[in-house]
Amino acid sequence: MDQRAIGVFDSGVGGLTVLRALRDAMPGESFVYLGDTARLPYGTKGPETVRRYAQQAAAHLVARDVKMIVIACNTASAVAVEHLRERLAPVPVVGVIDPGARALCAATTTKHVAVLATPGTVSGGAYEAAISGIEPSATVTSLACALFVSLAEEGWASGPVAEAAVRAYLQPLISPETGAPSVDALVLGCTHFPILRDAVETFLGPNVTVVDSAGTTARAVKAELRKRGLETGSAQGDVQFLATDEPGRFAHVGAIFIGESVAVSDVERIDL
Amino acid sequence: MDQRAIGVFDSGVGGLTVLRALRDAMPGESFVYLGDTARLPYGTKGPETVRRYAQQAAAHLVARDVKMIVIACNTASAVAVEHLRERLAPVPVVGVIDPGARALCAATTTKHVAVLATPGTVSGGAYEAAISGIEPSATVTSLACALFVSLAEEGWASGPVAEAAVRAYLQPLISPETGAPSVDALVLGCTHFPILRDAVETFLGPNVTVVDSAGTTARAVKAELRKRGLETGSAQGDVQFLATDEPGRFAHVGAIFIGESVAVSDVERIDL
Repeated sequence: MDQRAIGVFDSGVGGLTVLRALRDAMPGESFVYLGDTARLPYGTKGPETVRRYAQQAAAHLVARDVKMIVIACNTASAVAVEHLRERLAPVPVVGVIDPGARALCAATTTKHVAVLATPGTVSGGAYEAAISGIEPSATVTSLACALFVSLAEEGWASGPVAEAAVRAYLQPLISPETGAPSVDALVLGCTHFPILRDAVETFLGPNVTVVDSAGTTARAVKAELRKRGLETGSAQGDVQFLATDEPGRFAHVGAIFIGESVAVSDVERIDL
Repeated sequence: MDQRAIGVFDSGVGGLTVLRALRDAMPGESFVYLGDTARLPYGTKGPETVRRYAQQAAAHLVARDVKMIVIACNTASAVAVEHLRERLAPVPVVGVIDPGARALCAATTTKHVAVLATPGTVSGGAYEAAISGIEPSATVTSLACALFVSLAEEGWASGPVAEAAVRAYLQPLISPETGAPSVDALVLGCTHFPILRDAVETFLGPNVTVVDSAGTTARAVKAELRKRGLETGSAQGDVQFLATDEPGRFAHVGAIFIGESVAVSDVERIDL
C-alpha cells in the first residue's frame, strides 16, 4: 500500500478528461495535476521542445514525491514517454497513446481506422506504431487537426465554426464513390478533442465508433499500480492542481473539461 | 550614426509583418528578429506570464547589443511596454499599440471604431486607453478573436472555416436595425490578423477601413531613431532570425507573414 499521489501532467486543461477517468476508476487514489498552461499548446511545437517541457513537468512532479507519472497529453506521450521512462526509473510512466490505440483496435471490425490528433502527434507516427503493434493488418488514416485545440479552448463545441472545421479536416475520411466514411472507428488522439465529439459523430454518422484514451488509460494505470504493489489503502483521495499560467483561467476553462467546478483557490501557480 | 541592429520580438511569426514594414521604411537598418515560437501564443495567457516572457525576450536581444527594442506583438505591447521601458533604459522601446491606435484614429470620420485583438490585449484595455488619448470622443468596440491566431497559423485565410469564424466574431459590429456596420474603421490589433484581412473586409463591406499597426509602427521607429541620433549610415542592412522552437517551422510559417522565403539555415534556435 502506497498513499503517495499519482502525478498527472498535460500542456493545459485537456488532460483533465483523463484525470476524471482516473478518479472514477480509482476513487481512493490522490492526484497532483500539472497543466503547463503558460506554454500550451504542445501540439504545434517541435519534438525537442515538447520533450524538454515534458521533462520539466515530470521532474517537478517527481520532486513532489509522486509514485507514478501519467502523461495525459497525446503529443507529449508521442514524443517523450520512452525518454521519461529512462530518466525517471524506477518511477513508472504511463502515456495515453498505447491505451488510445488499444481502445481503437477494440472498436474496429473492418480494420480501417482513423486518428485525429495534433500535428506534433501525427508527424511522429506514434499512433500508427502503437496500432500496428496490436493490429498489424490495420489501415490507419491520421489527420492533423490543429484548430480543434483552440476551438475547444474557445468553448465552441458546436455551431457553424466547429461544423466547418470538422468538415474541412474530416473530408478525407469520406469515400468519394459511396459518400460514406471509409473507416469504422476513430480515436480522438488529443485530450482537447472529446469536447468536439458530438460534432465529429454528427459528421461521420452512426457507423463510425468514436473512442478516446481516457477510460483505457485509467485501466492501464490501475493495472500498473496493482502490478507494482503501489495501490493506496485510502477510501477517498484528494486532488491538487498546479498551473504555470493564471489559476483563474485554469479554473474557468478546466471546469469544461473535468465536468465540475474548480475553485481558483485550489489551483497553485508554479514556474517550470 | 549607429550601425547596431534593431531588436524586434514577437510571440512567433506574426511580428514578421511588422519587420517587413520596418525594412521597407528603413532599408539601411539591420534587424534581429526573435520569435518565441516555443511558448506561443501569448494572446490567451495572463499578463504576468506575458510580461515575464517579454522581459526574457527583450533581455536576450539587449545582450546581443541592439540599439532599440520593437515589441512586434500587440499582447506583449499591451501589458509590457512600460515595464520594459523602465527596465531597459536607456535602450528605447517601441510597441505596436500606440501606432495602431494612431492609424485607427486617422482612418475614422464617424469616431465609431473597432479593435480586433487577442483576449489578452482586449482584457487589459490598452487600445481603448491609447485611442481615447488621441480621440477622446471615440466610441470603441473591442472584440477578442482568439481563434484567428490558429486560423492564420493553419494558413486558412479564406474558405468556410475562416468565413464562419469572421462572422461569429464580427457579428456584434453589424447594427440589427440597418444591417450595416456600426463602425467606419477597424484595427487588426494582433500581428496574425492581417492574414485574415480579406475575409474581414469582405464581411464588413467597403464602408469600413481596415488598418493594422505595421506601417505606423515603422514610422514611429524611424522618428525615434532620428530623435535619438541612432540612425545607421549603411545603405543596406541585414536580418538575423532567432526562434525558441524548431527553425524549420519558423521558416515555413514565417514565409507566409514576411512575404518572402526564409531559409532554415538563417534561423538560429535559442532558449529563453
